[in-house]
Amino acid sequence: MSNPTACIIVIGNEILSGRTQDKNIAYIASGLAAIGVNLREVRVIPDVENTIVATVNELRAKFSYVFTTGGIGPTHDDITSASVAKAFGVPIHRHPEAEASLRAHYSESDINEARLKMADVPQGATLIANPVSAAPGFIMGNVHVMAGVPRIMQAMFDSIKHTLNGGKPVVSVHVSTNLPEGTIAEGLTEIQSRYSDVDIGSYPLYRSGGFFTTLVMRGTEPARNEAAAAEVRALIKRLGGEEIDEPGHGQ
Amino acid sequence: MSNPTACIIVIGNEILSGRTQDKNIAYIASGLAAIGVNLREVRVIPDVENTIVATVNELRAKFSYVFTTGGIGPTHDDITSASVAKAFGVPIHRHPEAEASLRAHYSESDINEARLKMADVPQGATLIANPVSAAPGFIMGNVHVMAGVPRIMQAMFDSIKHTLNGGKPVVSVHVSTNLPEGTIAEGLTEIQSRYSDVDIGSYPLYRSGGFFTTLVMRGTEPARNEAAAAEVRALIKRLGGEEIDEPGHGQ
Repeated sequence: MSNPTACIIVIGNEILSGRTQDKNIAYIASGLAAIGVNLREVRVIPDVENTIVATVNELRAKFSYVFTTGGIGPTHDDITSASVAKAFGVPIHRHPEAEASLRAHYSESDINEARLKMADVPQGATLIANPVSAAPGFIMGNVHVMAGVPRIMQAMFDSIKHTLNGGKPVVSVHVSTNLPEGTIAEGLTEIQSRYSDVDIGSYPLYRSGGFFTTLVMRGTEPARNEAAAAEVRALIKRLGGEEIDEPGHGQ
Repeated sequence: MSNPTACIIVIGNEILSGRTQDKNIAYIASGLAAIGVNLREVRVIPDVENTIVATVNELRAKFSYVFTTGGIGPTHDDITSASVAKAFGVPIHRHPEAEASLRAHYSESDINEARLKMADVPQGATLIANPVSAAPGFIMGNVHVMAGVPRIMQAMFDSIKHTLNGGKPVVSVHVSTNLPEGTIAEGLTEIQSRYSDVDIGSYPLYRSGGFFTTLVMRGTEPARNEAAAAEVRALIKRLGGEEIDEPGHGQ
């Protein structure tokens, strides 16, 4: 597939400390697949300027699109905007339109320097609107800087999705079975060898003391996914297994 | 802090496709903090040999410990063990002890070549026991290769935790408030400037149309965390806010 590529940089000590479980990766990943952009890597890094600068510069050269989440709020640990400016070698400036949005959103007694800091973006950046709480994200080159709060991140991502140059949407079908992976592995390898354009993934689920398996056929050609799925169903039957409803995710 | 460092490599197309939400990072992260190992980075990468080899080699040189999750099952897309062997430049071999465990776990009619593949580990690796389903993980140098299924990964991680050379446990206290981040940001910056040994994080939560904030004080000295927390509580009071029970995580 020659679809454009992407990576996500999750900026946040709270993920690395184990305090918070990320909720943003799956949302962005699904959205990118739907428009034919291949998510190739995710990095979770701490709120450390040098690390952010180096990571942004490494990955913006490597992938068509970079998406960052986190670190654009009003507090001392929100250093993403300044770090991205540094990565691009440009000064940070107070964006007039962003400042106006913030002043419109907050009452006069509530607006303060910490909140206005959220209008500071790298010179040359274009804003990403924040319909929830006014403080914008921004786009700088191929880097899309978004909030960490899932509800805001989702609104931001949805508002920029149409600006991305996608490729062929990546779609998938799945087949779940009561057979464990080890039983179907050999037959599955054989099917995969004849469907090099379909990415067949095998995912074990452990439930109530036993293993179930979900097979996922992914690719840009729905008909090929379906053809591979039909062969997987036949394999399951041949092995004496049953197709079942997919057990709940998350294990 | 001069604690040893660590990174996690999550190997799995299913995370990058958005199909599955990772549940392993937070578990490993919390476990490492408790024994004084600083988790500095997480990478999520696809089931692609070159990518796994390059990532393992880059990160095992950079951090004291590397933990991988995923890709050690019996199917064609389980290529972690072979890739780690390649990263270390050693052949893969069928580990006699691992083979014996698998043969003991499965009935004679169920054992097959796909399942025995799970006994293949890099030459020189030591095994990590799998009390759930016999197929082991392994340790090669500073790289700890574990399963992706959370329940198995957790059992594996718990069984090796005592072998890691930790430092001072990193502990934290938190204070939640009905004040939004922007209101406390300035006072918080001032407190942080006097507590350079405490990492003060500010995390907004968006609930029922309003923002709440949780402040987290983290460090290796419980008394310093508590002292900073007391100042944060005084700040909240001074600003007319209230300390509240922490709103549910996850936003």
